[in-house]
Amino acid sequence: MKKIIGTLGSHCSLQVLKGAKDEGFETLLITQKKRYHVYKRFGFIDHVMLVDNFRDILEPDIQNRLNELACILIPHGTLISSLSPDEIESIKVPVFGNKLILRWEADRNLKQELMLESKLQIPKTIKSKREISDLCIVKLHGAAGGKGYFLTSDQKGFEEGFSKLVKDKIVTNENQLYIQEYVRGVPVFLHFFYSPISKDIEFMGVDRRYESDIDGISRIPSKHQFNVSIEPTYNVIGNMPLVLRESLLEGVYEMGENFVQASERLVPPGIPGPFCLEGVYTKDAMFITFEFSARIVAGTNLYVSGSQYSDYLFKNGMSMGRRIALEIKKAINKGKLGAVLT
Amino acid sequence: MKKIIGTLGSHCSLQVLKGAKDEGFETLLITQKKRYHVYKRFGFIDHVMLVDNFRDILEPDIQNRLNELACILIPHGTLISSLSPDEIESIKVPVFGNKLILRWEADRNLKQELMLESKLQIPKTIKSKREISDLCIVKLHGAAGGKGYFLTSDQKGFEEGFSKLVKDKIVTNENQLYIQEYVRGVPVFLHFFYSPISKDIEFMGVDRRYESDIDGISRIPSKHQFNVSIEPTYNVIGNMPLVLRESLLEGVYEMGENFVQASERLVPPGIPGPFCLEGVYTKDAMFITFEFSARIVAGTNLYVSGSQYSDYLFKNGMSMGRRIALEIKKAINKGKLGAVLT
Amino acid sequence: MKKIIGTLGSHCSLQVLKGAKDEGFETLLITQKKRYHVYKRFGFIDHVMLVDNFRDILEPDIQNRLNELACILIPHGTLISSLSPDEIESIKVPVFGNKLILRWEADRNLKQELMLESKLQIPKTIKSKREISDLCIVKLHGAAGGKGYFLTSDQKGFEEGFSKLVKDKIVTNENQLYIQEYVRGVPVFLHFFYSPISKDIEFMGVDRRYESDIDGISRIPSKHQFNVSIEPTYNVIGNMPLVLRESLLEGVYEMGENFVQASERLVPPGIPGPFCLEGVYTKDAMFITFEFSARIVAGTNLYVSGSQYSDYLFKNGMSMGRRIALEIKKAINKGKLGAVLT
Repeated sequence: MKKIIGTLGSHCSLQVLKGAKDEGFETLLITQKKRYHVYKRFGFIDHVMLVDNFRDILEPDIQNRLNELACILIPHGTLISSLSPDEIESIKVPVFGNKLILRWEADRNLKQELMLESKLQIPKTIKSKREISDLCIVKLHGAAGGKGYFLTSDQKGFEEGFSKLVKDKIVTNENQLYIQEYVRGVPVFLHFFYSPISKDIEFMGVDRRYESDIDGISRIPSKHQFNVSIEPTYNVIGNMPLVLRESLLEGVYEMGENFVQASERLVPPGIPGPFCLEGVYTKDAMFITFEFSARIVAGTNLYVSGSQYSDYLFKNGMSMGRRIALEIKKAINKGKLGAVLT
Repeated sequence: MKKIIGTLGSHCSLQVLKGAKDEGFETLLITQKKRYHVYKRFGFIDHVMLVDNFRDILEPDIQNRLNELACILIPHGTLISSLSPDEIESIKVPVFGNKLILRWEADRNLKQELMLESKLQIPKTIKSKREISDLCIVKLHGAAGGKGYFLTSDQKGFEEGFSKLVKDKIVTNENQLYIQEYVRGVPVFLHFFYSPISKDIEFMGVDRRYESDIDGISRIPSKHQFNVSIEPTYNVIGNMPLVLRESLLEGVYEMGENFVQASERLVPPGIPGPFCLEGVYTKDAMFITFEFSARIVAGTNLYVSGSQYSDYLFKNGMSMGRRIALEIKKAINKGKLGAVLT
Repeated sequence: MKKIIGTLGSHCSLQVLKGAKDEGFETLLITQKKRYHVYKRFGFIDHVMLVDNFRDILEPDIQNRLNELACILIPHGTLISSLSPDEIESIKVPVFGNKLILRWEADRNLKQELMLESKLQIPKTIKSKREISDLCIVKLHGAAGGKGYFLTSDQKGFEEGFSKLVKDKIVTNENQLYIQEYVRGVPVFLHFFYSPISKDIEFMGVDRRYESDIDGISRIPSKHQFNVSIEPTYNVIGNMPLVLRESLLEGVYEMGENFVQASERLVPPGIPGPFCLEGVYTKDAMFITFEFSARIVAGTNLYVSGSQYSDYLFKNGMSMGRRIALEIKKAINKGKLGAVLT
């Protein structure tokens, strides 16, 4: 039976389904009813499944319908933010990529373990507020999307920030916080695709996030920043395109390859499909990795019709979403679909 | 007689005429003689009309020649900055879109009325300098392009800024100024197209402006900003591309639809063609609208060969300029040209 | 014998060789062994020459092999940073463009002479530390890539910065430094191509650099910048795309034409091929030129499949690399290859 490609209606679903359609698949969108007015206008969406809530995908009924349609589910950030790792693993519909590795993205300790195994450089942890001697960023264990983060360069600033979080009822205890050096440099997100069919890694593009209100603060001259209270927030509003200095590609490919190999060791079968390394390039052009995403990232939405880097590799305007569909097609043709699904 | 597409030689004329040519129209550029050396090199410009000044388009002679050629005029920012609303309305050449709504873009009170009717969130007005208690931006009634704007966070700063404007002979009276809260967030320009033929709204792309010298000030560390006098200016030099977080599209389409409906109520027949909502996304991902443009904006020049968003809707690299020409073609084919012209 | 297009494996080699392939040439990459793992994956690279070091291109053996293959060498930033002007001129392989002008790019005095002859506006030089009265940037004679640069707005800051450079053993003497006004505005890089075959100048695109750590400093609120030591560095990590306000194109073409004519006077035969003017647009939309590059720049890597501006001029996704190959093809077809090589 012919496979169809489905995904949740958010994050990068337009890119994923357009790409699937361009590779010849039928497509399915699982969307909240209130967003249907957005998605109904796109011709590349063949089937729509309306839900009240993305968590409805846990219901056997829904999963049965998806399996009757021979749906392959493409996971993205909305699946991860809607469900726990246990819930994702419980899904009985075939998921593209390695759904076990999504747990390593969601759990800070596992995440750090995989980054270290990949020989990535990561920011230093400051063990105690008494050891703060330069600019630091204070984060909440388990917090999503920068919520509650604050900057400080000394113990006093740490204590003020902590008091504010207590007052706002976000934390009760200093142990809920951890302190990282603030790595100075320019933010960069590196988009990779690993093909278990060809055994090749492909560097597909690069972006930086556009975050509110931090990326608006730079438009307030210092004099005015000083006169009012400014605490930066890091809410992702969108993404901006970039290209890298070509001499950096050597290190980019090495990081990608190390990450693929480390994933195969720690989370078999590894990381078929897209992933992203997220960090900054310092003034010495070293890449310090803050995070990874073990699935397609929203920054790839910039490259719906191909990126500068995918144009070196493919002829037909290859987005990351389309690349996923191409991999599924190749796997089907070679009778190796199992190698790209979990 | 076959229609030709014409526009003034500035702002987005290259995009508009290339798009018209790609849709099969003959094209005409009305250009100042001194800029002819720029435009003469583009193969998609079929006819050139040389003028000394863009205001020459008010001359009956010019208008007669345009009408003899069956020209449809595409309005853009240069038409608005060169002519008054009365003058634009007096033009006897068919104008694409609703030329009456251009008055609502140019007049601050009408503009605010249409934004409120569209249920857009707009910045708060501070009624008196005595009520300034956070960062504010002080603007001149009727000023174009940020000229004379200044920031302040208290009454003293307001008075200093006012004194400077008096000294520079820009104002004589505090009533010439108005005070708005400075909304913190990241600037975003949303490009829409409304088709009165299909009754559909299309979200076509997004950009942010690149302004001098405000977008250079961020490259001066605070320590150095403090040692010298810095007053930001907002002169538009260009535009940078963006994509939005997909979950924001729901609100984007709602704002666009509300704007179309409000326009139909307040300025019949409404807003056929392109328009733009201009504002910031706050840290809570709310869109606060500062301005709108009731015609094509220059930020669409980023997407000469299609944007990420137009690629979801169209196959052939659909710029906003080309979209205009496509709408004219469809209107002609359906005998409804009157629905897209005024 | 059929020509092949070759270049050093860095900077913009992917773009150059893909472009050459798209125009029907065979391609050759001269790459360091350690980077071969990056380049081996690109199908548009026909021949690879492995070297230990880019300076190996000075060896007669290598040059003989290149000449046996009928290779035309495309120069870029890596050639200039690897070899001295004398060494570049000594190369016995045909080089695209005017290799004599690369000396004018590398030498600060010659560079300034050519900029003045081109009637470009350049930053003011401050003759003595005692004349510093506004924000200045202090540079090292002959330094590459912003190394050692610092900002100051008074004599005291100059002396502190000098002391730091002495301590770091970068300079020993104040005369090794020169002081320039810090021109406030937004950075812009203008990409041009001059065709000696058609005698036309083409504006091909525009970018801004993404530099570490200066472009990350803006993401540190002023309060935090003050608490720690911040000295900006300008290491190029990548490039971001832009379009310009259309009304600026008039001045852009004038600057480009003046530069071409000045080059023909001072460094015959002039500047066949790509060049770049690098500066800022001030708040009054004046372009102040800091530097030029007399060859393809890495910012053109943004436009592998054409830029907004090349799309006005060409049908087939014309990158700067492809434009070079197209010029060579046209020159061959007209028997004028000598006009584009040195």
